[in-house]
Amino acid sequence: MSSGPPWHPPDGMRSPRYGGVRTFMRLPQVTQLDGVDFAVAGVPFDTGATYRVGARFGPEAIRSASVLLRPYHPEQAVALFPTLSGIDYGDLPTVPGYLPRSHQDIAAAAETFFRAGVTPVFLGGDHSVSLPLLRAAASVRDEPLSLLHFDSHGDIWSGYYGGLDTHGTPFRRALEESLIDPRQSIQIGLRGSVYDEHDVQLSHDLGFQVVTARELHRRGVDDVLQQVQELLRGRDCYLSFDIDFVDPAFAPGTGTPETGGFSGAVCHELLRGLRGLDFVAFDMVEVLPSHDPAGITALLAANLVYEFIALLALQKRDGSRG
Amino acid sequence: MSSGPPWHPPDGMRSPRYGGVRTFMRLPQVTQLDGVDFAVAGVPFDTGATYRVGARFGPEAIRSASVLLRPYHPEQAVALFPTLSGIDYGDLPTVPGYLPRSHQDIAAAAETFFRAGVTPVFLGGDHSVSLPLLRAAASVRDEPLSLLHFDSHGDIWSGYYGGLDTHGTPFRRALEESLIDPRQSIQIGLRGSVYDEHDVQLSHDLGFQVVTARELHRRGVDDVLQQVQELLRGRDCYLSFDIDFVDPAFAPGTGTPETGGFSGAVCHELLRGLRGLDFVAFDMVEVLPSHDPAGITALLAANLVYEFIALLALQKRDGSRG
Amino acid sequence: MSSGPPWHPPDGMRSPRYGGVRTFMRLPQVTQLDGVDFAVAGVPFDTGATYRVGARFGPEAIRSASVLLRPYHPEQAVALFPTLSGIDYGDLPTVPGYLPRSHQDIAAAAETFFRAGVTPVFLGGDHSVSLPLLRAAASVRDEPLSLLHFDSHGDIWSGYYGGLDTHGTPFRRALEESLIDPRQSIQIGLRGSVYDEHDVQLSHDLGFQVVTARELHRRGVDDVLQQVQELLRGRDCYLSFDIDFVDPAFAPGTGTPETGGFSGAVCHELLRGLRGLDFVAFDMVEVLPSHDPAGITALLAANLVYEFIALLALQKRDGSRG
Amino acid sequence: MSSGPPWHPPDGMRSPRYGGVRTFMRLPQVTQLDGVDFAVAGVPFDTGATYRVGARFGPEAIRSASVLLRPYHPEQAVALFPTLSGIDYGDLPTVPGYLPRSHQDIAAAAETFFRAGVTPVFLGGDHSVSLPLLRAAASVRDEPLSLLHFDSHGDIWSGYYGGLDTHGTPFRRALEESLIDPRQSIQIGLRGSVYDEHDVQLSHDLGFQVVTARELHRRGVDDVLQQVQELLRGRDCYLSFDIDFVDPAFAPGTGTPETGGFSGAVCHELLRGLRGLDFVAFDMVEVLPSHDPAGITALLAANLVYEFIALLALQKRDGSRG
Amino acid sequence: MSSGPPWHPPDGMRSPRYGGVRTFMRLPQVTQLDGVDFAVAGVPFDTGATYRVGARFGPEAIRSASVLLRPYHPEQAVALFPTLSGIDYGDLPTVPGYLPRSHQDIAAAAETFFRAGVTPVFLGGDHSVSLPLLRAAASVRDEPLSLLHFDSHGDIWSGYYGGLDTHGTPFRRALEESLIDPRQSIQIGLRGSVYDEHDVQLSHDLGFQVVTARELHRRGVDDVLQQVQELLRGRDCYLSFDIDFVDPAFAPGTGTPETGGFSGAVCHELLRGLRGLDFVAFDMVEVLPSHDPAGITALLAANLVYEFIALLALQKRDGSRG
Amino acid sequence: MSSGPPWHPPDGMRSPRYGGVRTFMRLPQVTQLDGVDFAVAGVPFDTGATYRVGARFGPEAIRSASVLLRPYHPEQAVALFPTLSGIDYGDLPTVPGYLPRSHQDIAAAAETFFRAGVTPVFLGGDHSVSLPLLRAAASVRDEPLSLLHFDSHGDIWSGYYGGLDTHGTPFRRALEESLIDPRQSIQIGLRGSVYDEHDVQLSHDLGFQVVTARELHRRGVDDVLQQVQELLRGRDCYLSFDIDFVDPAFAPGTGTPETGGFSGAVCHELLRGLRGLDFVAFDMVEVLPSHDPAGITALLAANLVYEFIALLALQKRDGSRG
Repeated sequence: MSSGPPWHPPDGMRSPRYGGVRTFMRLPQVTQLDGVDFAVAGVPFDTGATYRVGARFGPEAIRSASVLLRPYHPEQAVALFPTLSGIDYGDLPTVPGYLPRSHQDIAAAAETFFRAGVTPVFLGGDHSVSLPLLRAAASVRDEPLSLLHFDSHGDIWSGYYGGLDTHGTPFRRALEESLIDPRQSIQIGLRGSVYDEHDVQLSHDLGFQVVTARELHRRGVDDVLQQVQELLRGRDCYLSFDIDFVDPAFAPGTGTPETGGFSGAVCHELLRGLRGLDFVAFDMVEVLPSHDPAGITALLAANLVYEFIALLALQKRDGSRG
Repeated sequence: MSSGPPWHPPDGMRSPRYGGVRTFMRLPQVTQLDGVDFAVAGVPFDTGATYRVGARFGPEAIRSASVLLRPYHPEQAVALFPTLSGIDYGDLPTVPGYLPRSHQDIAAAAETFFRAGVTPVFLGGDHSVSLPLLRAAASVRDEPLSLLHFDSHGDIWSGYYGGLDTHGTPFRRALEESLIDPRQSIQIGLRGSVYDEHDVQLSHDLGFQVVTARELHRRGVDDVLQQVQELLRGRDCYLSFDIDFVDPAFAPGTGTPETGGFSGAVCHELLRGLRGLDFVAFDMVEVLPSHDPAGITALLAANLVYEFIALLALQKRDGSRG
Repeated sequence: MSSGPPWHPPDGMRSPRYGGVRTFMRLPQVTQLDGVDFAVAGVPFDTGATYRVGARFGPEAIRSASVLLRPYHPEQAVALFPTLSGIDYGDLPTVPGYLPRSHQDIAAAAETFFRAGVTPVFLGGDHSVSLPLLRAAASVRDEPLSLLHFDSHGDIWSGYYGGLDTHGTPFRRALEESLIDPRQSIQIGLRGSVYDEHDVQLSHDLGFQVVTARELHRRGVDDVLQQVQELLRGRDCYLSFDIDFVDPAFAPGTGTPETGGFSGAVCHELLRGLRGLDFVAFDMVEVLPSHDPAGITALLAANLVYEFIALLALQKRDGSRG
Repeated sequence: MSSGPPWHPPDGMRSPRYGGVRTFMRLPQVTQLDGVDFAVAGVPFDTGATYRVGARFGPEAIRSASVLLRPYHPEQAVALFPTLSGIDYGDLPTVPGYLPRSHQDIAAAAETFFRAGVTPVFLGGDHSVSLPLLRAAASVRDEPLSLLHFDSHGDIWSGYYGGLDTHGTPFRRALEESLIDPRQSIQIGLRGSVYDEHDVQLSHDLGFQVVTARELHRRGVDDVLQQVQELLRGRDCYLSFDIDFVDPAFAPGTGTPETGGFSGAVCHELLRGLRGLDFVAFDMVEVLPSHDPAGITALLAANLVYEFIALLALQKRDGSRG
Repeated sequence: MSSGPPWHPPDGMRSPRYGGVRTFMRLPQVTQLDGVDFAVAGVPFDTGATYRVGARFGPEAIRSASVLLRPYHPEQAVALFPTLSGIDYGDLPTVPGYLPRSHQDIAAAAETFFRAGVTPVFLGGDHSVSLPLLRAAASVRDEPLSLLHFDSHGDIWSGYYGGLDTHGTPFRRALEESLIDPRQSIQIGLRGSVYDEHDVQLSHDLGFQVVTARELHRRGVDDVLQQVQELLRGRDCYLSFDIDFVDPAFAPGTGTPETGGFSGAVCHELLRGLRGLDFVAFDMVEVLPSHDPAGITALLAANLVYEFIALLALQKRDGSRG
Repeated sequence: MSSGPPWHPPDGMRSPRYGGVRTFMRLPQVTQLDGVDFAVAGVPFDTGATYRVGARFGPEAIRSASVLLRPYHPEQAVALFPTLSGIDYGDLPTVPGYLPRSHQDIAAAAETFFRAGVTPVFLGGDHSVSLPLLRAAASVRDEPLSLLHFDSHGDIWSGYYGGLDTHGTPFRRALEESLIDPRQSIQIGLRGSVYDEHDVQLSHDLGFQVVTARELHRRGVDDVLQQVQELLRGRDCYLSFDIDFVDPAFAPGTGTPETGGFSGAVCHELLRGLRGLDFVAFDMVEVLPSHDPAGITALLAANLVYEFIALLALQKRDGSRG
């Protein structure tokens, strides 16, 4: 294994991929950020979950599944390595059972990446962690970010049980704190039953562009991608991917699954179609290994994180800023 | 919780949805039918199963999964509550291991709903239960019902092992007893291997309209829905949904799964497209929790039952009788 | 089913035990406490868990498994019903993700039982819930309670991550608040690795009698029961049973399992040997259905709760106050 | 593989044990009974089950697990082959969902073995199948049989739901029909809650010797074996083994599990201690693969069936008729 | 059951399909090849697997699932029996842990079928077994075969760990040995990350026609089938189906799953569209029961093998040699 | 985390134990052996398995379960850290599918530890890996080692399928190569069916002391420990622990399980009673995560490895060489 940057995984044709301690893609576990393009970091926190809980084990499961990944992406025609130097940073600090304190710790730790110019890829954890991650991302720039949000839920409730933060509230807080600009943000995949008709209108009222699941099913991937490209091109984007965007058949291991979702193939196509956009951070959240008996949820999550990294490789190789 | 009609679930924003005893959608468990629009009732009987068995635990699993459901349906733009007053009635009486006697008990109990003007939503149980349920539904009206039947099997065999009733025979009996009118009935989703070529012709010979799985895959949902609407509009319909209509990837927990089926998203679209029709009862059968390790079958079944109830809400709010 | 006290389950020889909505032993779901001897109540809270999480689904799983239980206890030669009138109260209020507030809500709700003279049997939830339950139990009496505590951990750490409450701290708080009298309390089953040697001494230093797992394995059940009887006879006892007292082979579904534990048969013998003691409340905690693939943990928990209720039946029938 | 009797398994050191079609111990699948000492036969019927159902798949699971077994039994110091010639007969005919007719078919088929002088080893199925099997066994002899019955339940209820046969009634019927002599029969392992105090007394009243689970736990295996030997020596014995005799930790895959049972090691010791007795048939019932996620129930059942066959090998090699 | 050719399954309307010893479709287990059209044979070898391992249990699982299949194929309008005489031959000999020796044994055994004019349907096993199977198939003819290869991987690496054979190398060896003609062969479904850009080009460089997963998703089944028909019509074809062609949601039980794959319905359509081609052998490989908790992978594999046999029935009934 | 020796885990009271990349006990992943007392190293090789396969994932599972372990051992009254400096070395090199070559690579890598004076704790892998590990251990000393072997099988077959090495042969080879001295070695726990009577005698004939499972059940732990202590005291011991020594209820996740084994509590007592002996290496083999649905096998294995390390801590603190 390399002993300094550029960092990359060991050769899978030399040593079996199931061998060794499981970091993401078997990347070196390093916490020094010099010479690093991207860092995978776990955020094993799930105290914000309102139904099934256990996403604290999400990072472990995604790392375990990721060792199957190989370094060249055929569809994007890009070699992740050595184009990029990447590490597995380990996990950010959290305190199970204590959301406000954990959010502080997460934000403080996450800022390190942004200050070092390293693009972080965060593995949740429940969706509440996107709030401190956005706070960190916003702390180093003057303008609000664009949010590209794949999810079956909008996660913009004002609060639960009288105003408290949960995994259903992060983007409401992010709006209130001007971390994101809703007019330059888009939510894709919303579906399922809601509490009342105001819930449906809420995303629109707050200013988000919204593509519901039904709309995506009917319009198709290419048409929606065009909308996304037009909206986000040239903007600093934060991509947040809640695995419950995917249908429960493809991603049973999640906390609040909604039926009628999307296949893995659709997810791949959606993410591949984002080339040309500028991403400052990614998160993959709500993977719940305890409800994933065949491991297909973690496997898909790992493969979609791989798409994130391929986008970064293209971004670095080709430049972007369209 | 309300102490009298109109009955509705408790507020999910106040108390966690996983709390309390699990009735369908956390509806009040009530057996008094005054002021009730619809009643969910379990029919935990599986002695009619000819392969895997265990659907007697289907009602429990569907109830458990249903607590995730919220009261407003965005795609149909209808609030289930307070539009409707609904209850969980509990289960109908059955005697495990004894089909003829259980069918008698089920029919007698089911009649109560029809006589009280309450629309029942039955949770099976194997498909044999549709026969006594149809007997009950037919007992209160002068004309045969229209059957809208989603299934990978026609369930019209004349008998098994020399004439005995099973979950493969209910609609043959229903025809023989004139409970349903085949010319105003339709079977959708038939597929898989059969015993001989007569099996293929049988549905047609008996007078049913049939849309095979392959046909639905090729024609698409909208085209088939138009056919259904034209056939059934203005008729009293009984909707019977065998979960093995769905592909095993989306619904592994069933007794006689057939590959090459449909996604959850297609199921949702099919059911949503039934607005305007008049339903007198629904059943959701063949959910087998023992083969549903991630719970996605029960989750989908609960969500499709939710579609049934949304149709009722539209029916009540808008009237129908096209 | 009975429509007023005395409350009891329906006859299992008449209707199949898997039928109907699943309350504990299919007891009536009632929240009115007149004429009630004991009430089973869920406390679906797991925000105090420091490793695996998901005990919020413990009450559901224990209720589901409990429907197998029949009303007569042969070894204790006592009929639970009609000796006792018992109900399933449903669940106490909690706010997932917020421990201090949930503890307040739990304590307030639990007090109701004690003020009404009803003996509660609580189904956790993680072990942090024992603290508010003890607060409620202590609030109605002048003297500290005796604690009878089966567990592989002492749960007397002063705090985690700088002083915060978790499922490892309830009895430390209970001591500090004088809710229990350590000299009249006993912890049984402690085992497994600890942080340092002070942890081992801590229970003794705080004044508890302790029987480690190794000691129980070597001394045997009868000898330890004699010690318990001598210590606790005539005292108001709170029995707290953490399912991780049991070996992981018999109870895999728990949050922080420790190997080298006890069989189900030993648990039954231990609980049966408590007849003659005076219990004011019971709790059964740390049942985690997501790690219980065959359901044996919930089944054992339900059977041990049944032992609790049999003790109450003996207490009522025979009097106690030795 | 041999092409005529004596029949025996192929050599496991030559071809991998997991290879080929799975008969019991990879014995030849043969239905011709000449030159056969014992025949393993499945009875895949579970319509008598009153709670969990699915034992119809028990024979398949036991066969699958049995391929691990090798031909020499060290503790009994006996080579099963070539001492014995044994076959896998396949399954007896049954009609799922129809108990009376299936019982007729089972009895008729089972008689074949007894008339041919072949000792059958039956793999259930639920415990209701012991009734037709006993009818067949009794049909070829003048005197009632002795029953040696390992179970957590007595299975002597007079009926369920008004007199119908289930898996809880076979030995009541067997008594009424004088198939077994209760004074020369013994039930071992009874435990768990019952309906009322008469249930406890019932076995005794009917004339059975009974060793409850608690008694076996306290007296130990050797002491109970001495009682069994004294009672049954010189008698024609039918051994019926309900896998729920075993603790759920060792045998989770069963229909009505009872906690507080026995380990696999105790089962092995009990069966080994039966040498010298004369067995005319064996059954192993209530193995439910759908609740056996790690396959340990079927594995134990296969190993206990192996103990049955070892007893036959000793019986043939040494003679018995003490 | 028939006692001589033509061989066919027993009547599923007479005896329950779950009964008896599990051969493929409950076909007679026969090793004599006279009067046999096709033979199903297991190849339980998985020593070539480079990640998850356990496909040695694939044949057992596919056989177990296959008993659900009935003899008439409605979409192809063909009765498999009596059109064909078919057997379950059992398994070919292998030595676990020793690839070169096992490949010799497999090839030698497989030749028997080709010399007898029986079309074999092989159930793997990992994909390395296709090499000895192709050697056997090629040994009886003068020209290289056409390969029709469904897979997410090309399996044409030159070697692993310095030149050794694995499940990633069979078709490279087959090319080098001129067992197949790449210009008359096609690989369908390739996807997922690879080691470097040469991997992408390799199939093309070796002469194969390739349809990537993405291309199949975009072009659709009918268009690709036309290409296949044009390429392969009139050629002797070997069809090799790696179950990881399918998406992990539909086939989780496999050794090196790749996300973004195909549904079961697409697989059925692809195979049905091959009528008119001439197949000399089929294999279905990489089914891994240990990662298939709901059994849907084995079920799909069994159904796709059924499509193979239906193609044979059409081939025999209609002739082909277009 | 420490950046140089002495190496120890991070503080579990500061950061949640489920956080970070999973090394054994969260020890630093280090391959430099200066200042190291013990090194945990995976040997993810399972090509020697003759039945179920998949122990290549054993090291990952044991590491994952081990993060629950805390640094102080109460029963042995020893702090593992800072008494010892320990690391997780990662995995030794292997080539899946190729036993002879892998054995060479394993032996070469393992020698490093012995030459550096570091006590290795190996995590298998199937039992074939003990052979190269013993070769490495023997290579640095003049005399054969004493083997302390816990297992249900003797693993001393001369070969399988005509002389080839498997997981059933390592100790036969070790004897032939004089790596171990059988007269100073002992095998504990043997049980289960064997191929013929010579198998039973074989261990004795080769010179091993043997304690069968039945003997250990009857004599008890203390008596057997005395025998072990007398035999091995003062000798250089290699401890090999096959997890199938344990009963399948406690360790379902293994390749060739044998019923009638031992509880986890017995294992703990056996290992604790080895204090005073001198161990030069340990291995824990045959953990198969794919058959361990609740993770209890890996958990027990991790806890028993912890006992190994505690023995080392005592050895270092107290000296030994009795």
